[in-house]
Amino acid sequence: MVQKLIENIKKTGAPIVVGLDPMLDYVPDRIKNEAFAEYGETLKGAAEAVWQFNKGIVDATYELIPAVKPQAAMYEQFGVPGMEVFERTVSYCQKKGLVVIGDVKRGDIGSTSGAYAAGHLGSVAVGSNIFEPFHEDFVTVNPYLGTDGIKPFVDVCKEQNKGIFILVKTSNPSSGEFQDRLIDGKPLYELVAEKVAEWGTDAMDGEYSNVGAVVGATYPEQGKVLRKILPLSFILVPGYGAQGGRGKDLVHYFNEDGLGAIVNSSRGIIAAYKNEAYRHFGEDNYADASRQAVLDMIEDIRGALCTQRQ
Amino acid sequence: MVQKLIENIKKTGAPIVVGLDPMLDYVPDRIKNEAFAEYGETLKGAAEAVWQFNKGIVDATYELIPAVKPQAAMYEQFGVPGMEVFERTVSYCQKKGLVVIGDVKRGDIGSTSGAYAAGHLGSVAVGSNIFEPFHEDFVTVNPYLGTDGIKPFVDVCKEQNKGIFILVKTSNPSSGEFQDRLIDGKPLYELVAEKVAEWGTDAMDGEYSNVGAVVGATYPEQGKVLRKILPLSFILVPGYGAQGGRGKDLVHYFNEDGLGAIVNSSRGIIAAYKNEAYRHFGEDNYADASRQAVLDMIEDIRGALCTQRQ
Repeated sequence: MVQKLIENIKKTGAPIVVGLDPMLDYVPDRIKNEAFAEYGETLKGAAEAVWQFNKGIVDATYELIPAVKPQAAMYEQFGVPGMEVFERTVSYCQKKGLVVIGDVKRGDIGSTSGAYAAGHLGSVAVGSNIFEPFHEDFVTVNPYLGTDGIKPFVDVCKEQNKGIFILVKTSNPSSGEFQDRLIDGKPLYELVAEKVAEWGTDAMDGEYSNVGAVVGATYPEQGKVLRKILPLSFILVPGYGAQGGRGKDLVHYFNEDGLGAIVNSSRGIIAAYKNEAYRHFGEDNYADASRQAVLDMIEDIRGALCTQRQ
Repeated sequence: MVQKLIENIKKTGAPIVVGLDPMLDYVPDRIKNEAFAEYGETLKGAAEAVWQFNKGIVDATYELIPAVKPQAAMYEQFGVPGMEVFERTVSYCQKKGLVVIGDVKRGDIGSTSGAYAAGHLGSVAVGSNIFEPFHEDFVTVNPYLGTDGIKPFVDVCKEQNKGIFILVKTSNPSSGEFQDRLIDGKPLYELVAEKVAEWGTDAMDGEYSNVGAVVGATYPEQGKVLRKILPLSFILVPGYGAQGGRGKDLVHYFNEDGLGAIVNSSRGIIAAYKNEAYRHFGEDNYADASRQAVLDMIEDIRGALCTQRQ
């Protein structure tokens, strides 16, 4: 699956991901009113509004980007109708040729991790039929439970050519509370990264592994170190834009082939029309504002990568 | 919410939880065939089979037990219909007076953790309406992202009198890979426990906190240490039975008031009819087998606690 991601990155020249993390506050009133008129002020109405909002952004940006990352929490908060729209979003993006990274941060043990892996990446058998319930291309996974929690995901990656990104160093301010603590002189996130490298050797797809890592854009020094520990893994880099990361901080997350990282922006893209720089688009043209924010993000990251190579 | 759990424990005299983690393999053929006859061999058919299976076990055991713990993965693997049955199971158990611990192991950052907390424990506003999508009483939470990931859950616990159990030392064989690593001479799980104690002081409900910890039954020595670090927290103890834990190993997870811990068994109860000891009940009487397994588990744990107090 990482090969499909690489193809898409090469085709677009844009190592970026758009995070589809819709809060109801981001959705323009016109879309909300239409959804509420049809389904009432209900969870189904909220989910429909989110769906129409997503569709607008995907339609306006899919030719520019290789991948999207829907954040499961933003759908789960609207209950069962929210999960239905999560699946509909995954399907729609895949039909548009995008790689879909389900940001689910699941992680459990043994057969339970197996059930998450089957539900999100793989397939389940019911009688003589086989179903792929949420069928993301990649998911994010939490490493706290160790190999028992990760192995069932890696097995599905191998069997069904899917991928995972394992949380290594997250972008949030308190990520250091546990992740930065020193163990035999090394921070925990390095130990986790070493395990990611080990798990990943078992799931190669061309020159990269289907097992990647999450390293926040807000910690560029750590990104530089982790790039070296994880030469064969793609790094998913959240925290660009709204959380503070910028293109010039991110060059060391990439390998010399210009690959190996994919930078995510969520709010900075999908709620661009609320930012000073894009407010002139107006609420009704929120998707055009998102498109412009994507173009600006691509230019920022391409520029930084070019400068580095000179 | 921990007071409601304590009331239920005192009423039943049973500090146990039944883990509703149904694999399709556990569901008797008769139930599966009926569900498939109605909905086909579909995700909806599988979810319906799981629902009927759950209902049988809850009906046979609810008077004996204080709480249940549905494992989200086992429902999510059946996609949207699975999540619908997850919610139906939560509702049904609550109507029977049970405390429901959603074993979701979620954990993200900031507004994203907030969305999980709202969707699973709290409420979301849609227009002028308020909904409680999955409305569990407690959920399990992963600590890897630090305070940013936990705080939104604690806030909902305080505002809506709900509870959480944070993963500290999990029951699986590889839990030590990261959790046991020494930091300034102390294992990581102790550092996590110290934070759990700190987060918990902010969410007291009577003499215990609504912020508890998960500590596997398979690590009794660690349980003893963690009991002392967490005097005000309930400990949710998975790993009893099928994973190897037994009553006599678990006495040190409890405080001297006989409270402070709640022991979970999943497969050992819900798939009891497949075990040698209960096979004589037969597949059609799977719920009676579960009831007997609950009675035996209660006796094992009560016996161990009595012996300790003598």
